[in-house]
Amino acid sequence: MTATDALTGTDALGQRQRAHLERLQQRYADILATLGFDAVLIYSGHASHHYGDDQEASFAAYGHFMHWTGAANHQHDWLLIQPGRAPCWYYHAPADFWHLPTPAPNGVLAEAMALEPLRDVTTPRLPLPDGSRLAVIGNVGDATLPAGAVRNPPALITALDELRVRKDDYERECLHLANRHALAGHEAARLAFTEGASELDIQLAYLAASRQRELQVPYQNIVGIDRHAGTLHYQHYDPEPPTAPRSLLVDAGHRYRGYCADITRTWASRGADPLFSRLIQGVTDYQQRLIAALKPGIDYVAMHDEMHRELAELLVETKMVTSSAEAAVANGLTRAFCPHGLGHGLGLQVHDVGGRQRNAKGDALPAPIRDPALRFTRTLDAGMVVTIEPGLYIIPMLLAPFREGAARHTVDWNAVDRLESHGGIRIEDNVIITAAGHDNLTQGAPLPER
Amino acid sequence: MTATDALTGTDALGQRQRAHLERLQQRYADILATLGFDAVLIYSGHASHHYGDDQEASFAAYGHFMHWTGAANHQHDWLLIQPGRAPCWYYHAPADFWHLPTPAPNGVLAEAMALEPLRDVTTPRLPLPDGSRLAVIGNVGDATLPAGAVRNPPALITALDELRVRKDDYERECLHLANRHALAGHEAARLAFTEGASELDIQLAYLAASRQRELQVPYQNIVGIDRHAGTLHYQHYDPEPPTAPRSLLVDAGHRYRGYCADITRTWASRGADPLFSRLIQGVTDYQQRLIAALKPGIDYVAMHDEMHRELAELLVETKMVTSSAEAAVANGLTRAFCPHGLGHGLGLQVHDVGGRQRNAKGDALPAPIRDPALRFTRTLDAGMVVTIEPGLYIIPMLLAPFREGAARHTVDWNAVDRLESHGGIRIEDNVIITAAGHDNLTQGAPLPER
Repeated sequence: MTATDALTGTDALGQRQRAHLERLQQRYADILATLGFDAVLIYSGHASHHYGDDQEASFAAYGHFMHWTGAANHQHDWLLIQPGRAPCWYYHAPADFWHLPTPAPNGVLAEAMALEPLRDVTTPRLPLPDGSRLAVIGNVGDATLPAGAVRNPPALITALDELRVRKDDYERECLHLANRHALAGHEAARLAFTEGASELDIQLAYLAASRQRELQVPYQNIVGIDRHAGTLHYQHYDPEPPTAPRSLLVDAGHRYRGYCADITRTWASRGADPLFSRLIQGVTDYQQRLIAALKPGIDYVAMHDEMHRELAELLVETKMVTSSAEAAVANGLTRAFCPHGLGHGLGLQVHDVGGRQRNAKGDALPAPIRDPALRFTRTLDAGMVVTIEPGLYIIPMLLAPFREGAARHTVDWNAVDRLESHGGIRIEDNVIITAAGHDNLTQGAPLPER
Repeated sequence: MTATDALTGTDALGQRQRAHLERLQQRYADILATLGFDAVLIYSGHASHHYGDDQEASFAAYGHFMHWTGAANHQHDWLLIQPGRAPCWYYHAPADFWHLPTPAPNGVLAEAMALEPLRDVTTPRLPLPDGSRLAVIGNVGDATLPAGAVRNPPALITALDELRVRKDDYERECLHLANRHALAGHEAARLAFTEGASELDIQLAYLAASRQRELQVPYQNIVGIDRHAGTLHYQHYDPEPPTAPRSLLVDAGHRYRGYCADITRTWASRGADPLFSRLIQGVTDYQQRLIAALKPGIDYVAMHDEMHRELAELLVETKMVTSSAEAAVANGLTRAFCPHGLGHGLGLQVHDVGGRQRNAKGDALPAPIRDPALRFTRTLDAGMVVTIEPGLYIIPMLLAPFREGAARHTVDWNAVDRLESHGGIRIEDNVIITAAGHDNLTQGAPLPER
């Protein structure tokens, strides 16, 4: 039993995991029957090698494999799902002295599944009657498959993606535990920043407190001091700290049994411009108002528009913008201050599958023209998990057109110039939609530091 | 100027780098002329995505690209080499606000090369006359290439691999600097172990002191406490420390301008069996004796055999084995205690290219039948860099046949059983062969802690 299990009560989590597996069994049976398959074989995948080298790149298992197993780091495994039979997990366990023997899956998974060790890297022999209609999904490349097997049928992938969009109680708890680990990391990052640490050392402090190595994080953490906080995909960690840092943005997660946390916090140093601290509070406040409005039936795209209205209000309140809030949205100014979307679906992948609204025929619809990068465009429904991550950045490239355009007199460019060295602000929580409204998963005590 | 540059004198290193580039220019010209090419275009490569996900796996650039640039993390770059002209580096520098703009290469590289930023992910247009005989090497997959270009011609790859086997003064200095960073990490790992840290925290202490993130290390560090030290490819980091640890094996490196350090150290705790400490000293002593014998003309396979003789002597001296040393080699007992090779070539890859001896026709010869995994089988020559990494492990799976075989009375099984919980020992340094003999690169003060 790990410390985490003890905190939540293994029995409660185990009970939920049993219900999760029963639900998957039932839903897979429905989907396979509808699409005319007798069974599906799911491949976990395997790491690639660096080109011309014998060293492996980092690896994350296929989402549909993790949906059953939670095993994000299992390579060369296969999972056979057949309606009416327990899942069979062929797990790669080479019998050599080079590697630590892969422990057999245990706990609820071992109770609920048949387990077959695979000594070699190979496709398992399946106990299927001749003529079975088999689908095989995952990165099977040129693997030898049973005759007649269908590789990655699109309709099946779409249906299984959709099954992952609504999370059950087990998945919700895993997401919450991932969040609590990540919160411990964020607290350590904040402390390291107050002590003058570099980006590299803040990242290492985050990993130590959230108890994970870099290869396990669900996405590459963003740790940006000062201007770096304004580079949206900043993924370098400077080993040298600045002499007088102003700001820190940390966008960093954790994976628990496959499920991802994705949290962003922004901090001002004591030397920061007071306006920057005021803006952090302002973004935090409207982020919480956006979350408070979440419930089934709400259109996520409408929430994204609401984010822009809130941002405009904050810019007007703080006198950074002197036009009306409506004008600042209409002329595109808020999109220059925040060029990314409100957030995305979250689950076994940090940008989870099934985020796009579909029409009655089942075709995925494109994102709104004005926000082509918006990853989640659906009407909210109980069980969906989304991030809510408004931002406010000083990105010279995006603000430049406004310095010379018709709206140039509506912006306090002195303030903008003062803030440029602070980079930007993003505040991000993870929220599950419930029948009653929503539940913010980014809360609760961080896991205790060891 | 970085702290490292200051330590070595930028000018001295820069001078060596100029000579390195001139040497490559000359040698590439010879090779291309011999093989009938007018130019070669080298692709840096790019990261792959996790399957069905939008997150990238870790990345290391193609070795032949690094040979010129040292840029291990540059994706989507191309390098055009033409005899008689400066190399042209097409470096990917997207003009967007999502990413930190890639800084243009500077210093000696900028002096010696023509630089062309590439805004998009694309194959550059090359300033080559029609009918040029062009080779393109690297992971070009299905990239669109100029008509008539030859992809990855084997004879060219072999010749360029061979060019990497002998290191010049610049490469030697980079390898030495990589070693000094790694030594700082090893010292921090040792200290963390004495303070009771877990494998995860020892790994993080290593990264902090060697000033690198996990995604930058040239190979996944091995940090094994107790029995884990006996699993040769142990690559998990337990977050919990054992109550009373006995031993720690750390096999961990660093990459400096592309060049890799690969160092192993083994430590005994105060609670370790005294015999284990004695064996660490014994392995260290004969590792140093093996290194002392290195010089041009020495056959590395013969040195590997010498390692087994030294191991046998140690086992006899410490009364773990009561047969003669010769018998312990002849009956395979030393290969049960140390199943891996003496080491491997080292350079821009941790297991560097060009390690196999070739016959007069240029065909790579297989490793000796008794040691099929030996990665380096060449006669040593000035400029070659190899690791020397003897080991001594208690691996039950390998010793089991000897417990029941004819040699069963020649082993002190009580001692073996006592040591099993300590896992094993490996001591590894990086050595360059010089005209006068050799130079151990794994020495010098560790870089100062910050």
